[in-house]
Amino acid sequence: MPKLVDHKKRKIKIAEATWKVIVNEGLEEASVRKIAKVANISVGSLRHYFSTQSELFVFSMQLVSDRVENRAKNKSYEGTPLEAMQDFLSEFLPIDMDRRIEMEVWLVFSTKTLVDPALKELSQVVYDDMHQACSMVVERLTDLGLSSPNLDKNMEIERLYALIDGMALHGILHPDRFSAEKMQATLKYHLESLCEGV
Amino acid sequence: MPKLVDHKKRKIKIAEATWKVIVNEGLEEASVRKIAKVANISVGSLRHYFSTQSELFVFSMQLVSDRVENRAKNKSYEGTPLEAMQDFLSEFLPIDMDRRIEMEVWLVFSTKTLVDPALKELSQVVYDDMHQACSMVVERLTDLGLSSPNLDKNMEIERLYALIDGMALHGILHPDRFSAEKMQATLKYHLESLCEGV
Repeated sequence: MPKLVDHKKRKIKIAEATWKVIVNEGLEEASVRKIAKVANISVGSLRHYFSTQSELFVFSMQLVSDRVENRAKNKSYEGTPLEAMQDFLSEFLPIDMDRRIEMEVWLVFSTKTLVDPALKELSQVVYDDMHQACSMVVERLTDLGLSSPNLDKNMEIERLYALIDGMALHGILHPDRFSAEKMQATLKYHLESLCEGV
Repeated sequence: MPKLVDHKKRKIKIAEATWKVIVNEGLEEASVRKIAKVANISVGSLRHYFSTQSELFVFSMQLVSDRVENRAKNKSYEGTPLEAMQDFLSEFLPIDMDRRIEMEVWLVFSTKTLVDPALKELSQVVYDDMHQACSMVVERLTDLGLSSPNLDKNMEIERLYALIDGMALHGILHPDRFSAEKMQATLKYHLESLCEGV
């Protein structure tokens, strides 16, 4: 089905142009006209793939989530269980340029959900997925007998999730203050603290 | 100096109108024309107080920081040291409608710093102030002999700060998932976890 494949590829190319405009100039500047120009297609052609700007934004936001999810799922995790967990959770932190761009775009769209209901649903789905991922980590620590006995699992899930997103926020907004090394060290410290006294 | 007082008051009124437009319609809609309308003054009058939109945005962002700082400084903290610390740190969380609006505006401006250098300096000053506040809390826990002996202070400061901002982010974007009660419970849990084994 080469046509279908081309269609999908073209949509991704347009979404990537959207990311580019957002990262370089901000969401206010991400007009259909400018995105078409950056994607090197006509506005009419862009409209063929996305009939509204809102549709284009939802697809572009979804692409961030898909990329992060695919990478996290297809990675091979090695080392001790704690190391593997740290490696898995690092996929949700802006530890390199690709992840930084994705998360910057994600932050911009997330902020936009405050006034744009079209993006809200996706934002909630991903919130729940990430909550689930944090839950898996906490459960696995318990199943492996690694976590200290006095942990409150529900509290630990909320704490881990807030910590990950807080670190991502600091890394995106203040990379000079909160480097990738600090993120990794803080995450390692946190995971180890859950296993104390075992 | 009634004139000076009036001048300051008028600037605050305009900044509050800016917040209102941002919360209701988003930053893209916060044109000088619209803000003047919401503040119930003429565009010419607004220009008398803020010659550029950028100046107005910096003042409006600074007002969030001033409000939060004043409230945190002038509050009387009661209860045990841990309760007082929780109460202090709660000032940086969207636990009620006033704080929610302030933090929503803060998030919108923070995201804007990614493409607007005018807001960047203020954002960094406040990052450092908040880092300092978290540092004070961790130091005080140690000084009072409350914290467990194996804490790494520098790591604890980064962890506490990321946790606070991550909870604030979740509370702003997903108040239906992460309520004020959950924020408070997670914060209490975290502070108590620092004192285990003492």
